[in-house]
Amino acid sequence: MKTTTTGTRERIVRATSRLLRRQGYEGTGIKQISREAEATLGSVYHFFPGGKQELAAEAIRHGDQEFAELLRQGLAAVDDPADAVVVCTRLLAEGLRESGWQDGCPITTTALETVGRAPAIEEAVAEAFAHWRAVVEAKLRAAGIGGDDARELAATAINTLEGAELAAQVARSEEPLHLAGRHLARLINTYR
Amino acid sequence: MKTTTTGTRERIVRATSRLLRRQGYEGTGIKQISREAEATLGSVYHFFPGGKQELAAEAIRHGDQEFAELLRQGLAAVDDPADAVVVCTRLLAEGLRESGWQDGCPITTTALETVGRAPAIEEAVAEAFAHWRAVVEAKLRAAGIGGDDARELAATAINTLEGAELAAQVARSEEPLHLAGRHLARLINTYR
Repeated sequence: MKTTTTGTRERIVRATSRLLRRQGYEGTGIKQISREAEATLGSVYHFFPGGKQELAAEAIRHGDQEFAELLRQGLAAVDDPADAVVVCTRLLAEGLRESGWQDGCPITTTALETVGRAPAIEEAVAEAFAHWRAVVEAKLRAAGIGGDDARELAATAINTLEGAELAAQVARSEEPLHLAGRHLARLINTYR
Repeated sequence: MKTTTTGTRERIVRATSRLLRRQGYEGTGIKQISREAEATLGSVYHFFPGGKQELAAEAIRHGDQEFAELLRQGLAAVDDPADAVVVCTRLLAEGLRESGWQDGCPITTTALETVGRAPAIEEAVAEAFAHWRAVVEAKLRAAGIGGDDARELAATAINTLEGAELAAQVARSEEPLHLAGRHLARLINTYR
């Protein structure tokens, strides 16, 4: 029974993540989540008594892990941190194209819609950004970029990836992400 | 009567722009727009017979002009293109803080929610991005940065500003935008 229970909860979180990414927070209802997850409304409320805000926060933590995993994979692919960021943009571009330009950043839409009015969601969003920055910062530090430079470069790298992913979705093109990779690599190399 | 008519249409567009930015496309209804704009539902449909999609496209064109104006103002403030981008990030950071971190990019939320399913909106979004890139590109060219470099740098500048603005909203801090300014200036200076 344990497995089934875990399965249902995971299906609910994944369905929420998918719907939030494509329709945003306001446009997504608990009923639609329950349908998409093939779970009863009762089980949705059983796992998430806090309702939509609690569900969205959990979906954002799911997206947080998903994107951190992609970053870790890309950054581990090569030693050089500038080249490694380029690998990340390539992975992002491939994933985006394969989803028909639908599955961009798993948290941006919800984050923007809930600024200042959903503390649990805002906290999960802030933690996700901090987590992603830390993953990039560790790679930069390992390559000998020190102090504030690594922290600041990591922040701009994440922000540039966010913006480039949005532009890639709008243009239905990998180009903005490839450009971001080249420019971030160039910027990183000015610190070495 | 001409003035009153223009006034109503403009109020409707501004209200739509404000609501889309804060709640997204799915979460915003025509009735709420009519209430916020202090216009009757009849007049909303009179000016926008195509309904919500037509209204949203027009609101995005409004946001397009608004952000282009800020960019032009910032870029005109100083001759040096790297310093000028820093001025833009300062203007963006001030505007964001003054709005209580609410009024970020006027089109991101709607753009993300409608990828692949609202052609009129997607067209307006693509035009807005192209417009903003062109404004930055012109400044870079005027400073002697040529060919593909100016076009590509302009694209990354806009994408980085987008991502940094989102991060600033999430963190309720001007810092991500100031960082973006410093890093973009540094990147631009590698081309001179």
